[in-house]
Amino acid sequence: MDNLGIVFLSELVGTAMLVLLGCGVVANVILAKTKGFGGGTLMINFGWGLGVFAGVIVSYASGAQLNPAVTVGLVANGATEFGAGVPVNLVSVLTYIAAQMIGAFLGAIACWLAYKQHFDAEPDAGNKLGVFSTGPAIRSYGWNLVTEFIATFVLVFVVIGFGGGRQGDGGLAALGALPVALLVIGIGASLGGPTGYAINPARDLGPRIAHAILPIKGKGGSDWSYSWVPVVGPLLGGVVAGWAAIPLLPLLG
Amino acid sequence: MDNLGIVFLSELVGTAMLVLLGCGVVANVILAKTKGFGGGTLMINFGWGLGVFAGVIVSYASGAQLNPAVTVGLVANGATEFGAGVPVNLVSVLTYIAAQMIGAFLGAIACWLAYKQHFDAEPDAGNKLGVFSTGPAIRSYGWNLVTEFIATFVLVFVVIGFGGGRQGDGGLAALGALPVALLVIGIGASLGGPTGYAINPARDLGPRIAHAILPIKGKGGSDWSYSWVPVVGPLLGGVVAGWAAIPLLPLLG
Amino acid sequence: MDNLGIVFLSELVGTAMLVLLGCGVVANVILAKTKGFGGGTLMINFGWGLGVFAGVIVSYASGAQLNPAVTVGLVANGATEFGAGVPVNLVSVLTYIAAQMIGAFLGAIACWLAYKQHFDAEPDAGNKLGVFSTGPAIRSYGWNLVTEFIATFVLVFVVIGFGGGRQGDGGLAALGALPVALLVIGIGASLGGPTGYAINPARDLGPRIAHAILPIKGKGGSDWSYSWVPVVGPLLGGVVAGWAAIPLLPLLG
Amino acid sequence: MDNLGIVFLSELVGTAMLVLLGCGVVANVILAKTKGFGGGTLMINFGWGLGVFAGVIVSYASGAQLNPAVTVGLVANGATEFGAGVPVNLVSVLTYIAAQMIGAFLGAIACWLAYKQHFDAEPDAGNKLGVFSTGPAIRSYGWNLVTEFIATFVLVFVVIGFGGGRQGDGGLAALGALPVALLVIGIGASLGGPTGYAINPARDLGPRIAHAILPIKGKGGSDWSYSWVPVVGPLLGGVVAGWAAIPLLPLLG
Repeated sequence: MDNLGIVFLSELVGTAMLVLLGCGVVANVILAKTKGFGGGTLMINFGWGLGVFAGVIVSYASGAQLNPAVTVGLVANGATEFGAGVPVNLVSVLTYIAAQMIGAFLGAIACWLAYKQHFDAEPDAGNKLGVFSTGPAIRSYGWNLVTEFIATFVLVFVVIGFGGGRQGDGGLAALGALPVALLVIGIGASLGGPTGYAINPARDLGPRIAHAILPIKGKGGSDWSYSWVPVVGPLLGGVVAGWAAIPLLPLLG
Repeated sequence: MDNLGIVFLSELVGTAMLVLLGCGVVANVILAKTKGFGGGTLMINFGWGLGVFAGVIVSYASGAQLNPAVTVGLVANGATEFGAGVPVNLVSVLTYIAAQMIGAFLGAIACWLAYKQHFDAEPDAGNKLGVFSTGPAIRSYGWNLVTEFIATFVLVFVVIGFGGGRQGDGGLAALGALPVALLVIGIGASLGGPTGYAINPARDLGPRIAHAILPIKGKGGSDWSYSWVPVVGPLLGGVVAGWAAIPLLPLLG
Repeated sequence: MDNLGIVFLSELVGTAMLVLLGCGVVANVILAKTKGFGGGTLMINFGWGLGVFAGVIVSYASGAQLNPAVTVGLVANGATEFGAGVPVNLVSVLTYIAAQMIGAFLGAIACWLAYKQHFDAEPDAGNKLGVFSTGPAIRSYGWNLVTEFIATFVLVFVVIGFGGGRQGDGGLAALGALPVALLVIGIGASLGGPTGYAINPARDLGPRIAHAILPIKGKGGSDWSYSWVPVVGPLLGGVVAGWAAIPLLPLLG
Repeated sequence: MDNLGIVFLSELVGTAMLVLLGCGVVANVILAKTKGFGGGTLMINFGWGLGVFAGVIVSYASGAQLNPAVTVGLVANGATEFGAGVPVNLVSVLTYIAAQMIGAFLGAIACWLAYKQHFDAEPDAGNKLGVFSTGPAIRSYGWNLVTEFIATFVLVFVVIGFGGGRQGDGGLAALGALPVALLVIGIGASLGGPTGYAINPARDLGPRIAHAILPIKGKGGSDWSYSWVPVVGPLLGGVVAGWAAIPLLPLLG
């Protein structure tokens, strides 16, 4: 398999793992009759953070970006090479993003299978969608975008900081899986209040497509009118974080 | 003592430690009049994860598999040698599994002794069994099997990933005790909702046998009709994860 | 940029990150209609601790002091050089403290933007201030000062301990970001009960100024009468910890 | 200062830090009008675990035993030398234990000062004692002793395991502060239900003496009839763990 194939598979598997565990913890906390029902926000934060942890572990070969906002942030930061010796160009960027999207889609399906009976037992259609994708606590596309922008800026800026400011040497795996897991737990606890912290277009859009396609008993709409916010906000946040890190982090690191 | 004796003792001690702390946290959260009563799902997740942590620490000599699903997963992955220079063959595999079963059985007895008065004070027989073994939130052998399969697949696949895809070099101790503890916390939070995440035939069957044998005041049945699910599901999940990691992880690592 | 400029920028960015995430978790737990509403004290402790984690990651160049109490504690401990080759003198100390204050002020503004709609939706003016700055559970300037003194003493004494007692070699980054994050989680859980653990004059005063200036809908006063306590208590605690560590830690380390 | 003086000071400071933070988290969760009131069992587990973390950090010179059960466990394990080149003999053992007792006593006083107003505001005398010392959920000296024995066995056995079974090379600092902090969080979550996990004679008796002496408003008795259980149980558990680790851990490590 060539290097582009390796990174495709690596990002796909890692993002699927991340989304399986991430959507899984939401299912555990909000779906009817689970053992974790009502487990609370901190438990959700830990589930997503440790989902990132597991995803990074199985995705070292590609640098474990697992997130289009990280990918575009590294490009904006001036990266010239991704993991596995793959050069940064339009083809490789699209390969990363496609793998992340497909992985997130597949991970959401696995989550649905693991919680199949609880999806069936859950009366509220909004909770079913809530396992797959984020939605705002107070709907206002502008302010929701601001929150996703800020939260993703923090993610990408600190992730680039893991690499000590060395351009093109980042990705979530730069310092191992634990720091980024802790960072995601922190972002979730601190900035997840208004929008549920998508901070990752693949994490939100892939499962939303799965929600639209899967034969989920009693499901409602997939809230497409909001779906662009957790795509655009994180992408903007990632790009600006990548830019901001050019003058700052090389100095700081 | 020969090497087979060492790994037998090592797996036995490690699995006993894991089950003592794991069953202990359930006892603390659900049995009457404990100080941790109602402590919540996240506390249970931490208790099991840190039980794995302690178990791995005292079981390095044998690679700290502590779980027949991990053992068969490593075999399916193509391992040729376990810890302490023990070759992979039918005798060594059965030694590992026997030690894990006996260790889990003994750990459950120690947990019962530590919580003896609270077992006596607990009025509900189902809660008493719940300290020892898992049971489904919604009983459906097929779907329960799917959940255990998926959760154990995640465990074994990521554990093999800890070793960077090197065949036959895994076991829970491959990267130290902390990563696997975090992984188990994450799997519990994310995939424990439907079945209580046995993800380990020894962890479920050993304590179930202890429950059947021990003179627990006011106990009910040991739910033998369900007992095969947390054995078969994890074994299948472990084997398939071991297979899946052959083409994937060497590429990715 | 000269070295003083580097440490200024580094401390500013790190403290802004710390305060954005720290104030953010309080907003998530106490403001109306957030997804983390009622998430509990432990979640707040994790949010602040992981805010320190993220802040330290992006502030290695300056030693990630992020806190005037740490800065004066290092001076009292006998430090002769800060990060980036900057000598300890009045100018550098004031540069560190100014950067920390401005960073905290800017981080609080970012937090307000991320939670803008929830500030608007929150009816209680005290909760709005509570996102920005600390206040006592039982008001008594003397005892509140004692609590802040003790909690900051623990922070600075242990932080100097991270460096093994080597004078002038401390700062929060001395042993990486994780230990200090864990320490702050622990101090918050254990000593945050009476005053909400400012333990950092910049973390409290910077956001208080932001609260006074920002056009926050329905805000009340900024409680200036209490504002000196979380400045004086931490500074005293830091200085005394620095002194106490001179005879103790070199011996012990 | 000679080496015996160093280890005395080191153990005293470390145990004081441990008890200040450990008793502090209990105060935060159970005393009236604190900000952490009702924070839950997991928060208490984290507070004690991170108290051990901080205590170990400032007590490396003496090996950070911080607990007479660890000290006697190391002796039973065959240790010939403690930290700082101090040989194991009656004088050094008594020096360690005396320092731990005095440190715990002083740490409890600092905790009382930090929470002074909340002790005054708390109406229940039992809660006041509960901040200082442990008590059983169901009083039965025999079974309470069993629980403390088992929990301390786990602590000391795993701590010796941190050192890979090398005799005389243990103490809580053998592998850094984080593993033992995690272990204590796990023991608290899993085995703290019946007796509140003293697992350390100094941690229980030192603060109990402080409770008896301090002019705490509205305090009741210090429950001396129970006070021997959290001394004898942990000492027995530590000694037996040290013995058990002689044949087991050298083989296993």
